[in-house]
Amino acid sequence: MAEAESSGYQFVKSAELFERASRVIPGAIYGHMSPTLMVPGSYPFYTLKAEGCRYTDIDGNEFIDYMCGYGPMILGYKHKIVDKAAAEQQALADTTNHPGPIMVELAEYMVNLIPIADWVFFAKNGGDMTTYAILAARAHTNRKKIVTIRNHYHGVAPWCTGFGHGGITAEDHTNILKVEWNDLEGFRQLVKKHRDQIAAFIAMPYHHITFEEQIMPAPGYWKGLESICRSEGIVLILDDVRAGFRLSLGGSGEFFGFEPDLICFSKAMGNGYPISACVGKKALMNAAAKVFYTGSFWMSAVPMAASLATLKNLKEINAVEKIERMGKMLINGLVEIGNRHGLEISPSGPPAIPFIHFKEDPNLYLNQIFCSEVTKRGSFFHPHHNWFLSAAHEEKDINETLNHAEAAMKTVKASLS
Amino acid sequence: MAEAESSGYQFVKSAELFERASRVIPGAIYGHMSPTLMVPGSYPFYTLKAEGCRYTDIDGNEFIDYMCGYGPMILGYKHKIVDKAAAEQQALADTTNHPGPIMVELAEYMVNLIPIADWVFFAKNGGDMTTYAILAARAHTNRKKIVTIRNHYHGVAPWCTGFGHGGITAEDHTNILKVEWNDLEGFRQLVKKHRDQIAAFIAMPYHHITFEEQIMPAPGYWKGLESICRSEGIVLILDDVRAGFRLSLGGSGEFFGFEPDLICFSKAMGNGYPISACVGKKALMNAAAKVFYTGSFWMSAVPMAASLATLKNLKEINAVEKIERMGKMLINGLVEIGNRHGLEISPSGPPAIPFIHFKEDPNLYLNQIFCSEVTKRGSFFHPHHNWFLSAAHEEKDINETLNHAEAAMKTVKASLS
Repeated sequence: MAEAESSGYQFVKSAELFERASRVIPGAIYGHMSPTLMVPGSYPFYTLKAEGCRYTDIDGNEFIDYMCGYGPMILGYKHKIVDKAAAEQQALADTTNHPGPIMVELAEYMVNLIPIADWVFFAKNGGDMTTYAILAARAHTNRKKIVTIRNHYHGVAPWCTGFGHGGITAEDHTNILKVEWNDLEGFRQLVKKHRDQIAAFIAMPYHHITFEEQIMPAPGYWKGLESICRSEGIVLILDDVRAGFRLSLGGSGEFFGFEPDLICFSKAMGNGYPISACVGKKALMNAAAKVFYTGSFWMSAVPMAASLATLKNLKEINAVEKIERMGKMLINGLVEIGNRHGLEISPSGPPAIPFIHFKEDPNLYLNQIFCSEVTKRGSFFHPHHNWFLSAAHEEKDINETLNHAEAAMKTVKASLS
Repeated sequence: MAEAESSGYQFVKSAELFERASRVIPGAIYGHMSPTLMVPGSYPFYTLKAEGCRYTDIDGNEFIDYMCGYGPMILGYKHKIVDKAAAEQQALADTTNHPGPIMVELAEYMVNLIPIADWVFFAKNGGDMTTYAILAARAHTNRKKIVTIRNHYHGVAPWCTGFGHGGITAEDHTNILKVEWNDLEGFRQLVKKHRDQIAAFIAMPYHHITFEEQIMPAPGYWKGLESICRSEGIVLILDDVRAGFRLSLGGSGEFFGFEPDLICFSKAMGNGYPISACVGKKALMNAAAKVFYTGSFWMSAVPMAASLATLKNLKEINAVEKIERMGKMLINGLVEIGNRHGLEISPSGPPAIPFIHFKEDPNLYLNQIFCSEVTKRGSFFHPHHNWFLSAAHEEKDINETLNHAEAAMKTVKASLS
């Protein structure tokens, strides 16, 4: 028990409340937040309060946050400018019979901000938008088939959820074709085999799969995809829900140097307020208008006000540059600490959305020890899912985290002997 | 022009902003809020501010609201108790790495409030929950087919959206069977034909279809459905997204005297804050936990705090009784005014969610004249979609509306001569 005590944090109230929750909620906490994806006994389950890049759980433990709510928090929790814009709109109106004028302002701002965007459609979930994008592509092309990358995550709609998960039928995937990430030749063969039947290709901007190392696009991959899609009349859809606005304010297509026809955004676009968007090129606008698509809260004004304030502030403070800088400082620091302890750490993905693996750790056993030990010292790291940096992280936060990491690395080292 | 002037309201700024929006948003305003469902030139498109049962559009016109944001507003816009609960939670945390303790409190409250509920699952859209319910039913029964009522609205997922809408394929409906409303024998035949293949039956609590008269369940219909579902192992799903909490706080199954296995809620449950829920019986809980289902903002704390305050306040003020009383006063008043002008008005649906038709008006021509004339005088009535009352409506509001209706009825009468 000396070890557990030295690593500090206890999660007694989290465990108690989780037990209570398990009686009235299937799985107690479900989906991406499920504690089954974490290390038992080493992680909090419920948040009490949050501010800047830090939050406090219901046991009173404070964390520097490297998940950022799994992406939404990009400017910091309780961000004064964003929350003020939201509160001012709330004082007027939120969900009524009509949108507020803010809907038009936000759409116009995004059309100016994002190079490929001639129009914008708003909803609530990232998954609302990936499904919308494939419907718009089908309406535009009058074709049915959709090519996806094996294991890319596009939400929880049956067309993009694997068998093995409850309720998914073979028929849900009738029109879905799969190809491997970075396999341009595989895509070319698929297109040849299903010529004039493929409505769209959809993928995340790079390969970031839970439990796996992140894999960036191979040189020429996206340009090659774009070229095939153009010549074959296939709609190129970028699912930028997870990475959007962290790599470039113009979408991750701008970052990787290609032009999608449609881009799906959510997560960071409202700094935590619930909103998603699909932007698209002019040529797709008529087809997009033919999709019947709506939701009770999709035109609510408050998240739109929050989103406009978020996007403007991201631009004003050059957040993308800062987030990358903080990510580099973190990752370089972790690699250096590992080196000092004779542990080789391999970082993957862009610094703004980084992940690490230890050498010769295929089951992520060392990752689990490291991340849980860091978390119990006050820096929240997920052992199996890519991390997120934000513009609220400062050098002093990263330095504090590197101190936590130093202590945790000793435990990793000790576990090997 | 004398006629237009005497009916008051102009919508110049709404039209201008709509024109601007049409350049950057497909359809400018889409889905259920689309002005294409209204009467051209007689309706506002954008809300400036809202309070109680009234709102003001961007031209400065004020309306007593009989759509309540298409359902979400049930206690009144800018409701002090609900907004205070939301603001207090916002001051702590909203979207973070974990739910707040409020998630467990809300789930426990709903389990106590709703007779059939042993558990609760939360999301954002009503349609998130209807799809979740059919996935849970499939996981529970290990069957694929779903029986729906022709033209019932369950959201915009491909399985419940008709052909003719952009992007929907025949394959999306492979496992969907249709039956007519109130046709118990038709359902029995369908079950006989597809024995041991039907996972679920899903329907709204009564028949409320855009453009049509509302049709209540025939005597014995729901009990008959329940009995067949029980004996055939079919999961009985109630889509209470639109009607939920207006007819009974225990769900509309309580109101109509039957026991669903799963109930989907959204709209009114947060008084406008974005939240939805599926509640279910114990027997379905394991299957529900096997469905992989999640969204970036589904466990956000603010809408949960708003929802708990909403549900508690609805109970405290006996809102269901009041909303019904206000609805009866409105509908009786309209029928009486019609009678006085020699116009027979046939109300349909429950008083809390009423609609009217004029006699011998199959194309809703008279409805369009009446609703647009009432709207232009300051009481917002939709000509083609059922209306909603709220607990914020008072007798004085209904009386003011009946004055607007009196003047509008003269225009209807004049149109016939």
